[in-house]
Amino acid sequence: MKFLHLRIILYTLGIVLLFESFFLLLDIPVALIYHPEGVKIIIYSLLIMAGTGLIGVMASKRQKATREPGVRDSFVIVSLGWLVMSLFGTLPYLLSGAIPRFADAFFECVSGFTTTGSSILTDIEVIPKEILFWRAETHWIGGMGIIVLVVAVLPFFNIGGNRLFSAEASMVSFEKIKPKVIDTAKRLWLIYVVLTFAETILLMFAGMDLFDGLCHSFATVATGGFSTRNASLAAFSPAAQYIATLFMFLSGMNFALHYFSFKGDFGKVFKNEEFRLYGFIVIAATLIITFVLIRHGGKLEKSFRDAVFQVVSIITCTGFATADYLQWPTKAWILIFILMFIGGCAGSTAGGIKVIRHLLIYKTTRNIFQRMVNPNRIIVIKYNNQPVDHNALSGIMSYAFMYLFTFVLGSVIMIFSGLDIESAMGSVITTLGGIGPGLGIVGPAGNFAAVSIFGKYFLCLMMILGRLEFYSFLALLMPGFWKL
Amino acid sequence: MKFLHLRIILYTLGIVLLFESFFLLLDIPVALIYHPEGVKIIIYSLLIMAGTGLIGVMASKRQKATREPGVRDSFVIVSLGWLVMSLFGTLPYLLSGAIPRFADAFFECVSGFTTTGSSILTDIEVIPKEILFWRAETHWIGGMGIIVLVVAVLPFFNIGGNRLFSAEASMVSFEKIKPKVIDTAKRLWLIYVVLTFAETILLMFAGMDLFDGLCHSFATVATGGFSTRNASLAAFSPAAQYIATLFMFLSGMNFALHYFSFKGDFGKVFKNEEFRLYGFIVIAATLIITFVLIRHGGKLEKSFRDAVFQVVSIITCTGFATADYLQWPTKAWILIFILMFIGGCAGSTAGGIKVIRHLLIYKTTRNIFQRMVNPNRIIVIKYNNQPVDHNALSGIMSYAFMYLFTFVLGSVIMIFSGLDIESAMGSVITTLGGIGPGLGIVGPAGNFAAVSIFGKYFLCLMMILGRLEFYSFLALLMPGFWKL
Repeated sequence: MKFLHLRIILYTLGIVLLFESFFLLLDIPVALIYHPEGVKIIIYSLLIMAGTGLIGVMASKRQKATREPGVRDSFVIVSLGWLVMSLFGTLPYLLSGAIPRFADAFFECVSGFTTTGSSILTDIEVIPKEILFWRAETHWIGGMGIIVLVVAVLPFFNIGGNRLFSAEASMVSFEKIKPKVIDTAKRLWLIYVVLTFAETILLMFAGMDLFDGLCHSFATVATGGFSTRNASLAAFSPAAQYIATLFMFLSGMNFALHYFSFKGDFGKVFKNEEFRLYGFIVIAATLIITFVLIRHGGKLEKSFRDAVFQVVSIITCTGFATADYLQWPTKAWILIFILMFIGGCAGSTAGGIKVIRHLLIYKTTRNIFQRMVNPNRIIVIKYNNQPVDHNALSGIMSYAFMYLFTFVLGSVIMIFSGLDIESAMGSVITTLGGIGPGLGIVGPAGNFAAVSIFGKYFLCLMMILGRLEFYSFLALLMPGFWKL
Repeated sequence: MKFLHLRIILYTLGIVLLFESFFLLLDIPVALIYHPEGVKIIIYSLLIMAGTGLIGVMASKRQKATREPGVRDSFVIVSLGWLVMSLFGTLPYLLSGAIPRFADAFFECVSGFTTTGSSILTDIEVIPKEILFWRAETHWIGGMGIIVLVVAVLPFFNIGGNRLFSAEASMVSFEKIKPKVIDTAKRLWLIYVVLTFAETILLMFAGMDLFDGLCHSFATVATGGFSTRNASLAAFSPAAQYIATLFMFLSGMNFALHYFSFKGDFGKVFKNEEFRLYGFIVIAATLIITFVLIRHGGKLEKSFRDAVFQVVSIITCTGFATADYLQWPTKAWILIFILMFIGGCAGSTAGGIKVIRHLLIYKTTRNIFQRMVNPNRIIVIKYNNQPVDHNALSGIMSYAFMYLFTFVLGSVIMIFSGLDIESAMGSVITTLGGIGPGLGIVGPAGNFAAVSIFGKYFLCLMMILGRLEFYSFLALLMPGFWKL
């Protein structure tokens, strides 16, 4: 048994680039309609991207299905895959001159693919539309995950697909859609596509054109947050804002629940403990913030709309803005800041620590007290009436600690890199959680242009760590990984 | 079997008040020397306190040793014990008029007994010395714990003593001094007394008088933080500051290690994993902060002295000040803020989350990665070469989450009560950890006088929760506790 199967890795990375090229191809019609002189740039980028991908696939002398990626290979493929995808994704930005500096283009790309939505652009509206479309597409590709797409489309992977799938998604979800991972990946992408087009159509009814509708749907369903306007969703009608709120909420749900809904099994949705808690948090935070905003002199409908929009935008880690929450009273924005540490549901495109982890940590803690008061009773921790074993629980708690520790350490590093404390904390939690806007200079009204070059690369690392949920990436750094 | 043994509870609470009276008795000589007109107040307070205690003991018609407090009784005794002790402890403050408002006196008392050291006094030096002595004594009583003292002195408790002991101390320490809890309690108090007098003598060599020496030793060894001067330790010589640093460091260590040292077994001290990490954190934080202060224009010795003093003062949750860390560059004080979340060692008088919990959380997290990379290897988590079982680990992780959750929720409540965000966060972490100074208006140069009445009571709750490590107190709030 070989330590790493380099050919499989090379082959898969080539395939990833070819898939990426396919999405870039869709920018050609956009350029033809809005900005014909931009077509050349797209084609050049396409040639470099697809060419490199082809070389990779050919140089690997395509493996037969008998050779599948092992556990280690999967970690390497996923980590390198995201790096390669982001590197080549900068081509349209750099060649068109829309983002001239590499560090900025790379940041924008990583922010896109990881569905963070943090931007270094100070004026979005001057960027040509085909570039904005590519920017929205990076969200859409990253949201469900390109590796999941590869697994869904190519019947080539079987057991290895399973490994790749979980290395990219690391979903703590306990809901199984289908026993076979290919079938699951296919259904996930189908739901993803249906949600995207449903939102596009509704947004068009609410006054957007097809271009804005598609870009915002890509960014919503992936819980990304890139907009085509400087004012984000505030540039559109209240109806569009409510529609975006609904679809952000749906995209923050476990996609398995959408699958059950499509099959008519609504009971499974409403009995799902994570979904109930997610819904409860959204409703409670919305009510409190609406109340605070009204007491602060806001009008009822506008206060409610801003509150529900920002609450859903932040908890799902989308990061669209209709209001600058830093201008709100402390009582309101502190809740927004706390929501950044919650995140959406497992098995969704949302980031963050995720609701299910908070729920299971609460149950474990409650269990300690139950054992204290009744030392003789053995109490099994259950989730949706299924017992959860203690290895899973300790994994979940460790994850949350790693997350908080990374947040603290990252904030200190950003402070040492020159940021003030508020901006440092805000920039780290927003990139780690894949949210978008932070606090201070990187708040909803600001952007990441002023962050140092070192800071930008460091925040890229935070985004990738957060998107891959640490494991795949950090496993490579374990001394044990490189031992036979 | 009865649900609660009310007579035992009444009896033990009476004893607690009698022990408290004994300490108050020591203020009479102090008053006679420095402030003879204050003797009357001490005697009045003493009569009320001891009288109530006697009534309690007599009304309970003293139980024979055959009846011992059960698990539930222990939780009630410890929680009520701390409340009763703090209530009666306000007498000298209120009767002398040194602190005229009840909320303030109660805050000062709880802060004393829980060895927090947060104060509502704006001018300490105008307070009569016998009152300042009582204030320092509250630290000393609370540091090792009055219940531990009762267990040590009265041979009355046997199994019940064990329960009471662990309900008050909840030490996660894995070091056993003696198999019998009475023997352990006796040795703990002996070490405590030796440390206190050793420090007093050294401080007197460094220029303090007996009164200041005793008061500061009480506050150091209990890791409390009340000083007799407005400028805290900055009012004394550098030598006194270094001595206080040393004794704060010693008091933040597991007292079992002092026991081993007294017996000459230094190997056990230096091989202790928690002690090594504690030492490492202190050295690393001191070096970084010294470096930052020097770059900021500080002189070498003064920068080092301020750095090591504040690092040790905060990590051990003492809270003495020689410098206002809020005036330091952000890079330096953010480290101080992070140290507030670390705390001292288990089995010490220090508060906070404690080093051992951080260590074991780190080991659990590392274990997850080891399992990921080598799924077939079974790796047992060890502490000082002893395996730690997964229930203990999940208890430790739950504790840390409960702590962080309380910090977040508490900060939000303090913000809603009217504090700014920095002061709110600072006031909660400093009271929960039993530290003393926080951030913002409750920083080292400020005090808690300006906090609202509601805020003061809420912070009292935080102090008691932190001192009793949640369990004893929160167990009472569990619905299961009150069911038969």
